[in-house]
Amino acid sequence: MNRIDHVDIVEGGSAIRLTWPGGEVHRFHALWLRDNALDADTRAPGNGQRLITLSDIPVDTRVNAALLNDAGDLTIEFAPGNKTVHYPASFLASNAYDRPLRRESGWTGEAVETWDRRLGERLPTGEFDRVRSDRHALARWLDHVRRLGFAHLGGGPVKSGALCEVVDLFGFVRETNYGRWFEVRSEVNPSNLAYTGLGLQAHTDNPYRDPVPTLQILYCLENSAAGGDSLVVDGFAVAQRLRDDSPQDFDMLSRYCARFEYAGSPGVRLRSRRPVIELAPDGELIAIRFNNRSAAPITDVPYDVMPGYYRAWRRFGELVDAPEMAVRLTLEPGDCFIVDNTRVLHARTAYTATGTRWL
Amino acid sequence: MNRIDHVDIVEGGSAIRLTWPGGEVHRFHALWLRDNALDADTRAPGNGQRLITLSDIPVDTRVNAALLNDAGDLTIEFAPGNKTVHYPASFLASNAYDRPLRRESGWTGEAVETWDRRLGERLPTGEFDRVRSDRHALARWLDHVRRLGFAHLGGGPVKSGALCEVVDLFGFVRETNYGRWFEVRSEVNPSNLAYTGLGLQAHTDNPYRDPVPTLQILYCLENSAAGGDSLVVDGFAVAQRLRDDSPQDFDMLSRYCARFEYAGSPGVRLRSRRPVIELAPDGELIAIRFNNRSAAPITDVPYDVMPGYYRAWRRFGELVDAPEMAVRLTLEPGDCFIVDNTRVLHARTAYTATGTRWL
Repeated sequence: MNRIDHVDIVEGGSAIRLTWPGGEVHRFHALWLRDNALDADTRAPGNGQRLITLSDIPVDTRVNAALLNDAGDLTIEFAPGNKTVHYPASFLASNAYDRPLRRESGWTGEAVETWDRRLGERLPTGEFDRVRSDRHALARWLDHVRRLGFAHLGGGPVKSGALCEVVDLFGFVRETNYGRWFEVRSEVNPSNLAYTGLGLQAHTDNPYRDPVPTLQILYCLENSAAGGDSLVVDGFAVAQRLRDDSPQDFDMLSRYCARFEYAGSPGVRLRSRRPVIELAPDGELIAIRFNNRSAAPITDVPYDVMPGYYRAWRRFGELVDAPEMAVRLTLEPGDCFIVDNTRVLHARTAYTATGTRWL
Repeated sequence: MNRIDHVDIVEGGSAIRLTWPGGEVHRFHALWLRDNALDADTRAPGNGQRLITLSDIPVDTRVNAALLNDAGDLTIEFAPGNKTVHYPASFLASNAYDRPLRRESGWTGEAVETWDRRLGERLPTGEFDRVRSDRHALARWLDHVRRLGFAHLGGGPVKSGALCEVVDLFGFVRETNYGRWFEVRSEVNPSNLAYTGLGLQAHTDNPYRDPVPTLQILYCLENSAAGGDSLVVDGFAVAQRLRDDSPQDFDMLSRYCARFEYAGSPGVRLRSRRPVIELAPDGELIAIRFNNRSAAPITDVPYDVMPGYYRAWRRFGELVDAPEMAVRLTLEPGDCFIVDNTRVLHARTAYTATGTRWL
């Protein structure tokens, strides 16, 4: 697709039709071509930003002439105005929109790879010193995060605030009412067993916040207890499994908004209204929000639909809890993992003791 | 609605029906009631977080007995398990879901008030010293932001980083690749007139970022030029006007994803795929993304639909540009305004000179 074989002006000049060497055909509208022109009057040469608005382009824009050069690239002359614009074949190939969009609700982009427990056998991981000193190692580690929404990182410093050094490798800390980081210190205390046991279901953090936290780092400073492993679950995999097992349940959780609330500290009351499974309008999986602790009463589901909604919600939770969906991690001091909190749920197994973590 | 008049167990105990003094009736499912129980075993007394998950609640949960006390509050005994839970009438009234949800696509919550140019006659504003020292004044100012997505603030310090003092009044700076703030310095330079003229259409910032910036402050440090006023436009008002004038155009911009991209600095390439008009699954207006400079080629709209999409996009831009939609602001040094960048577009009129702003 690096050269165009043939070009025709069609629909009275309101579009062109390109034929590629393999015989594939893509049409482009004159208006789209003019809007996406790459010349220096349309796009700033330095940063590629568009310098015109749609109102600068005549409604009746059409193609007057279309010409291929020896390299198989395209030149268009537009009317009115006789503007001439050059388009590399590769630009048109990679932005072709005249193609069937067969997308099942709950689809994910090419960069996303869903996973289950078996990912534990090939844990996406990196080494702190390596990732910090080698840009390629950093790129590989970040590619895990992009594809899987999760990666482990070992061998970091054991000191307060160390997780900020990890963030500095690629981004910025987003401060919240909890501060720049959040410390969790668990102690062995039998009277609290029920309590910690209750708080264990895998969840996404802060669904009551808008926008929710995106990339989160859980950093281990101390872990002298038996147990206290971390679990991560791919929320996109859970959603797609729900869709495949029970499409009507998937519809329930994506079509209706849940509500989330946190009012645990004086002067703080955070609320949001979003679905458990958030989809783009064309069905792409965008985000998962699942957290029993901050789930507020559901009031946006009609009465007759509510039993079905609860059924779907319960089923989603069962899949979240299913052992075959979770990857288990044992963190040593200086280890951390990063999750895309819009996608990957995390949990902690019971009987954690004297462990300290940052978030 | 502060007391319940009457309660019936219905549907074999899988629901109850409350009658309120005015005769209004609301049903609640046993499962919903159990899930939203307010007792100390279900909700942590300190912070209100739910201590149980849905899997802790039996699927066949039903109401065994329902009783009103003298105050008109409700007590439920559930089966299986004979758990007894008390519900204030006010809690049930404010969380009733057995009601018709007649919501037109593009609806907004009660806290949202849309506006047009006439808002300029009653500009939502505050005074820096007042807002900083008086919590009620601060609350009034923040209420403007919540309702209108926009507020003016006058009389702030004229020094670099002053806008961080405004942020400190209510929140946190979210750092990006642009730093903690972003400086715009315009100079009188006739050769640049076309350039500044081209960049003027009202827009939301950074639509290529996910999540987009939410609250933004534009702070004036210097404004010695004639002109260079700021404009703000309520994107929700634009969307609702589009819906009312031309529902099919509204559908186009909410049903299909646009694409946004910024690759202006070395090592930075930010991309997103989101609709111009973002709706919750039940049609609530969530966000507007509109920015000609960073609009990337649209490739998620089918070929046959593309002309209609461009028509809708053009119409949206015409409404954005319509003088009756914009509030005009003349900022003096030390003045700023805040916008909810997920809703309110901002622009700058032409012929700005020697003005310095932070963002």
